[in-house]
Amino acid sequence: MVTSTPTLEPTAGELTFEELQLAARNRGMPLEALRYDVSPAGLHYLLIHFDIPAVDAATWRLKVGGRVRNPLELSLEQVRSRPSQTITVTLECAGNGRARLSPRPLSQPWLVEAVSTAEWTGTKLGPLLEEAGLGPDAVEVVFTGADRGIQGGVEQDYARSLTIADAMRPEVMLVHAMNGEPLQPQHGFPLRLLVPGWYGMTSVKWLSSIEAIAEPFQGYQQTPAYHYQRDADDPGQPVTRIRVRALMVPPGIPDFFSRRRFLDAGPIQVGGRAWSGAGPVARVEVAVDGHWSDAKLGPPLGDFAWRSWSFDWQATPGEHELACRATDAAGNVQPSEQPWNYQGVGNNLIQQVAVAVR
Amino acid sequence: MVTSTPTLEPTAGELTFEELQLAARNRGMPLEALRYDVSPAGLHYLLIHFDIPAVDAATWRLKVGGRVRNPLELSLEQVRSRPSQTITVTLECAGNGRARLSPRPLSQPWLVEAVSTAEWTGTKLGPLLEEAGLGPDAVEVVFTGADRGIQGGVEQDYARSLTIADAMRPEVMLVHAMNGEPLQPQHGFPLRLLVPGWYGMTSVKWLSSIEAIAEPFQGYQQTPAYHYQRDADDPGQPVTRIRVRALMVPPGIPDFFSRRRFLDAGPIQVGGRAWSGAGPVARVEVAVDGHWSDAKLGPPLGDFAWRSWSFDWQATPGEHELACRATDAAGNVQPSEQPWNYQGVGNNLIQQVAVAVR
Repeated sequence: MVTSTPTLEPTAGELTFEELQLAARNRGMPLEALRYDVSPAGLHYLLIHFDIPAVDAATWRLKVGGRVRNPLELSLEQVRSRPSQTITVTLECAGNGRARLSPRPLSQPWLVEAVSTAEWTGTKLGPLLEEAGLGPDAVEVVFTGADRGIQGGVEQDYARSLTIADAMRPEVMLVHAMNGEPLQPQHGFPLRLLVPGWYGMTSVKWLSSIEAIAEPFQGYQQTPAYHYQRDADDPGQPVTRIRVRALMVPPGIPDFFSRRRFLDAGPIQVGGRAWSGAGPVARVEVAVDGHWSDAKLGPPLGDFAWRSWSFDWQATPGEHELACRATDAAGNVQPSEQPWNYQGVGNNLIQQVAVAVR
Repeated sequence: MVTSTPTLEPTAGELTFEELQLAARNRGMPLEALRYDVSPAGLHYLLIHFDIPAVDAATWRLKVGGRVRNPLELSLEQVRSRPSQTITVTLECAGNGRARLSPRPLSQPWLVEAVSTAEWTGTKLGPLLEEAGLGPDAVEVVFTGADRGIQGGVEQDYARSLTIADAMRPEVMLVHAMNGEPLQPQHGFPLRLLVPGWYGMTSVKWLSSIEAIAEPFQGYQQTPAYHYQRDADDPGQPVTRIRVRALMVPPGIPDFFSRRRFLDAGPIQVGGRAWSGAGPVARVEVAVDGHWSDAKLGPPLGDFAWRSWSFDWQATPGEHELACRATDAAGNVQPSEQPWNYQGVGNNLIQQVAVAVR
């Protein structure tokens, strides 16, 4: 164990060098790419805790063990030859929106761009666990990746758990392909877990082992990380499913440095995507200068994918502020005040876009 | 014309919100990906001045006009059916290293990660220009992309020029595929210019027209942008070929937030890549705590691609500082003092990596 980074308190100060380093290596999706139903693989957002590991597919094995009757060790070919399905899934980083919080928790400084959608191909996890035969005392399944580093003073392979009930859900998969191609290294080659509806930290990349355990998992990434905490002393609530959110493609053209938007007066269609891990998107509204109207929803892409929306606007000369907000079928709606928490997770504050109409 | 962003003076201050916005949408290559001869397409760095445009390949046409005898208009299929070649090319953003300058010019805040290598497939530009028949008064060729926005107060489609001599070089190509696949939208789909050996701003993406002109091009991206200037009043020298540089894969494992590196004592191979737009890499040296030794060069990948290097190090417990520097066949060597300039371009300062050996 190496104590490297002390606990970092949220700051009201300017961006730090450490945050810049993280922003330079992690990757958001430029919002104009919300136009694609399925994000091109090279535009999918990336949050990589440690380094992208070099995994040799020929010698790689997936170990399934712990509290199981029949421990398994599978080659990539064996995983690929199992029954296959492809599912369209929107993933979002739990930290998306962190850098818009005030004070700002210190970690990857996402604004709003850490969301993307891909077509993932693989095999269901449940039948594999049934084959391994979960023991009667198994309560959780731990997924460990090959990426190794230090966080919160703890040296670790990245690892997260699911309860047995969550692990057995039919949409939970082990995936080896993305958008019809083998996973690229940065997306978890050769195999990653995929937990549709949950924030991305759950979908462990570079999967090396699956272990059934008899007590709730206490690894760093499970706790204290990824909790909604009021402050450092609050044990908090675990981060699980993706909170409802809508984002728009910023209309018009940008200024290079300020990213301010400029467009010509006249009719324009504003559009974007909306999603929720708690159920289908039921409604998207758009505000022009504070006046809300319903947007039109496009066809659903699947139970775990974002949904397109559009809104016809008659743009008049002057400065305007556009905003959008989504409501899901469970009745969740995006907040207009920041949902602040100590780790800066789950910030689904309404997006606002200033435009200058000429 | 819209004056949106005033001229921005370099700053000694902290990172600005505008720089964070740029860092969130542009993308560096995590340095561990220096391990790949050819960067996976989804890891290639991206610098996108405006928005990624939506181009319909079915209706897209490449126009070749201006001072030519036979103006051309080519469909993507017509471009693809021309004689084809594939070339391995290292591209680097001219602004790579900008955020390490002090004072810091305000633009995309790259540290050192804006470099990647791909296998590009397309057709030579020269024969196409010969087919169009350059007029006797043509002195430059202007390449215009479909990405539109405002920079320096000027509304523009992104455009850059080459002299006739540079445009006719055999390695200058129009490319429609990257790493064996059609270009992804963010890399210039359906067609981009590729100018091997030059900084990336020259390789215009989303190419829509090629125009021969009788006077040197005065577009914003040609001048005043991309010049080595002492200050705002200095007309400066144009940025052209990539300056010599070596980068290493940071050894050991990282701390998540600080990115500080930790490794175990013992023998370790340190490695990375080196490149130059002015000629082959002739030498790479590695310093351990200020003592320089020669690294071993790997096999060349081609005239315009980076070259691997490695260095065997006996790591001893304690804090160490590693550094690497390259020299090219033209005798250029990386500086140990920052090569400061007003726009923050071409900063090939030696990379230093602090490691804690346990």
